[in-house]
Amino acid sequence: MGQIDPKAFRRALGNFATGVTVMTATDRDGNRVGVTANSFNSVSLDPALILWSIDRRSGSKEVFLNATHFAVNVLAVDQINISNNFARPAEDRFAGIEFKEGAGGSVLLPNCAASFECELHETLDGGDHVILVGKVVGFSDNGKPPLLYHQGAYSAVLPHPGHAIDPDSHKKEASSCDERLFDNMHYLLTQAVRAYQNEYYPKQLSSGLSTSEARLAMVLLGEHGSTKEEMLKEVGMPMREINIAVEALKLKGFLKCVEGTLSLTEEGRAAAGKLASIASNHQTEVFKKYTSEEITVFKKILKELIDRDPDPNS
Amino acid sequence: MGQIDPKAFRRALGNFATGVTVMTATDRDGNRVGVTANSFNSVSLDPALILWSIDRRSGSKEVFLNATHFAVNVLAVDQINISNNFARPAEDRFAGIEFKEGAGGSVLLPNCAASFECELHETLDGGDHVILVGKVVGFSDNGKPPLLYHQGAYSAVLPHPGHAIDPDSHKKEASSCDERLFDNMHYLLTQAVRAYQNEYYPKQLSSGLSTSEARLAMVLLGEHGSTKEEMLKEVGMPMREINIAVEALKLKGFLKCVEGTLSLTEEGRAAAGKLASIASNHQTEVFKKYTSEEITVFKKILKELIDRDPDPNS
Repeated sequence: MGQIDPKAFRRALGNFATGVTVMTATDRDGNRVGVTANSFNSVSLDPALILWSIDRRSGSKEVFLNATHFAVNVLAVDQINISNNFARPAEDRFAGIEFKEGAGGSVLLPNCAASFECELHETLDGGDHVILVGKVVGFSDNGKPPLLYHQGAYSAVLPHPGHAIDPDSHKKEASSCDERLFDNMHYLLTQAVRAYQNEYYPKQLSSGLSTSEARLAMVLLGEHGSTKEEMLKEVGMPMREINIAVEALKLKGFLKCVEGTLSLTEEGRAAAGKLASIASNHQTEVFKKYTSEEITVFKKILKELIDRDPDPNS
Repeated sequence: MGQIDPKAFRRALGNFATGVTVMTATDRDGNRVGVTANSFNSVSLDPALILWSIDRRSGSKEVFLNATHFAVNVLAVDQINISNNFARPAEDRFAGIEFKEGAGGSVLLPNCAASFECELHETLDGGDHVILVGKVVGFSDNGKPPLLYHQGAYSAVLPHPGHAIDPDSHKKEASSCDERLFDNMHYLLTQAVRAYQNEYYPKQLSSGLSTSEARLAMVLLGEHGSTKEEMLKEVGMPMREINIAVEALKLKGFLKCVEGTLSLTEEGRAAAGKLASIASNHQTEVFKKYTSEEITVFKKILKELIDRDPDPNS
């Protein structure tokens, strides 16, 4: 198979969706660190062991290796700003962040989906990363909907259809359970989204852009020029992914950066325009059978559902 | 912190959402194995290393340790049946499954989101599991929507709102980008689902049942009695989680199992009924402002969107 291209490998790895964690520790000299990581996973139930990997080039590595403990903060879906905060270099990443101290100087962030306080159990060689194995000495389980990371973009969890194995069951014979489900708005909404995506995503992928490249290009199409910092507020992607997507779009000749301001080239506008057309043609096709009154009612209810949420981040 | 309760620890770990993989290998004697695992993660880009952990009690462990290679098949959202197939004991898990041979006798399943062919690089001690580190020698990147595993149940990925950091931006000043988004049905649908869930999930959690327990109880409420095998077809959960949820519901006195047939007790019916009431009261509350004509139009469009999908599993 020869050499593995790290960029293509990293992109392939992005297909494995994961939660997002912030790892924290304080070393023996009182240096406190926090880094966003998605390499977390469970290892053993008895003893309770978990692991994650830190980049050997990370400025926080030494603190983690010199600390007796670290904490795993599993982020909830409304904590994108926390994820971004700990994913980037900053003078003091804990400035303005509320937290309490966990075991051995680790830091517990509030409102996470779960957290684990760990004793540093072992460090193992992991190529350009160091694998840290932690022995769990305490944990909290808050059950909040989690933040997800998939193909370079932040995402959320959508419940899977229950009728996953027998796809036609609801068409053939409606059981009492099916009838209840079909009267349930939550079920109808989630399944409608899933069905819409199943038809739409393959069309979007035919553009040849990755999900994160497409997302960036679509947002830039509506702007005359933006800095990366402004992009961070507009697209649900970490700065690292924005940087990678920017480089990829530059290589394709779709994007230019003049004095820190990103804008699409002519070719880039054409590509993003094609994406916008794919979305709008698909929508036209799907909704052509409805009257404008029906479409107005449908959109009104969706918009009002969105506006019921006092804060989309909570 | 004293002793860690393995059951509570496992449940807390379930808050970290992950993709689902099937790991495969063939040992030097030609024994072929495949197991479902969600402990997969990336380690290093250069060299290209990944890892996962296998239970020391697994019957497939020896084959993985005696094989030169293994493959990681990252499952797509429509591959629940593949996940279930490799998660349970079976005479021959590969019977009736189409596959092609990967590097060193590993097995590549078709239609996955991604796959990685790995040389077994190292095995590390991981308590009651063994950590397998693989050196990636080949991979494929298909970009399909992935199957997720969260709180014991199968799930799918929902795109995260772009306006994640500035929640009120779309209310205060509508940029041209906002206007486009608010005319985009995919955006409206995904955001409506997210807003609905943000309001509804905390109410559901107040029942004291975990997501998987609630899911099982709700399905059993519509049945007079079901075997675990029948449950596997109805709920989007692996058999292992069904077993755990069944035990938990039994302990609470909510469920009984007579000659392999599961049914809710009186108390269980009351608890599941309460869950059903929570769902239906929430729905009534949210939709009370609409006329029955508006609700009819809204439901009709959602149902027809669902029915456009020729096969909910694809």
